[in-house]
Amino acid sequence: MTAPPRALQDRYPEGFARCFGCGRLNREGHLLKTVWESGEGVSRFTPRPEHLSVEGFVYGGLLASLVDCHSMATAAGHSMAGAGLEAGVDETPRFVTGRLEVDYLAPTPIGCELELRGRVVEASTRKAIVESTVTARGVVTARGRVVAVRIPESMQRA
Amino acid sequence: MTAPPRALQDRYPEGFARCFGCGRLNREGHLLKTVWESGEGVSRFTPRPEHLSVEGFVYGGLLASLVDCHSMATAAGHSMAGAGLEAGVDETPRFVTGRLEVDYLAPTPIGCELELRGRVVEASTRKAIVESTVTARGVVTARGRVVAVRIPESMQRA
Repeated sequence: MTAPPRALQDRYPEGFARCFGCGRLNREGHLLKTVWESGEGVSRFTPRPEHLSVEGFVYGGLLASLVDCHSMATAAGHSMAGAGLEAGVDETPRFVTGRLEVDYLAPTPIGCELELRGRVVEASTRKAIVESTVTARGVVTARGRVVAVRIPESMQRA
Repeated sequence: MTAPPRALQDRYPEGFARCFGCGRLNREGHLLKTVWESGEGVSRFTPRPEHLSVEGFVYGGLLASLVDCHSMATAAGHSMAGAGLEAGVDETPRFVTGRLEVDYLAPTPIGCELELRGRVVEASTRKAIVESTVTARGVVTARGRVVAVRIPESMQRA
């Protein structure tokens, strides 16, 4: 039996691992994990009971957060694949969000695991465009389109 | 001396006041408050130290959340003004997010109060488009454009 794949976020350099959405060193955050599977980023996340919009449904701002971090990891996974690096094993390059778009297609039920799947649809050396879906109980409830940019020097204090 | 204006979120009906971003009854959430000033929604929020992206800067997913709730309140404030109702006094109608767009123009520093200002740029009876800015220390660091929709019956369990 092989070990489950390690998440891309587990291999961010320590200085970039405090993100509220996905930093393994931010214990108060969401701790989102994304694995690389057949050219896609895949994340699974179960919202907490307090992550409500209205009774029964997940807060759209949380979904936007998940799409955001999921897309950064997917951009990183894609760039690693292109460079012959192994996602979850080699160090993960850090991207930041240039633009985030989320379409809310249907209310997302709370109380179940969500699956995010994302793919890079356009890429240059400096940036990537990632398209993603959020699925709950087999229904795609949101779609994201995110511009991911290699972290600029102005943000590299860490 | 007059009392400070009450927030739009303080007058959401009780069943719609549990939103993680802005519900007054969700004590684990962000408790964002938006007031109505001269045709604009205005929100002020100080991120917590853990709301990081990378060291020194605010998590973009949090900014998306703030833009989201701020825009719903702004859409409500605009519709109330059109109906001759008083924001923060009369009951606030509940809108939900159809589409969220955020452009991250510059890294947002952590450790200071953020100001969001939003305005409805297009409206029908059923929906509104809200454009907003996020300002930190006098610099606009993000812009939002959000489609707000009157809450559909399918979400009205409350």
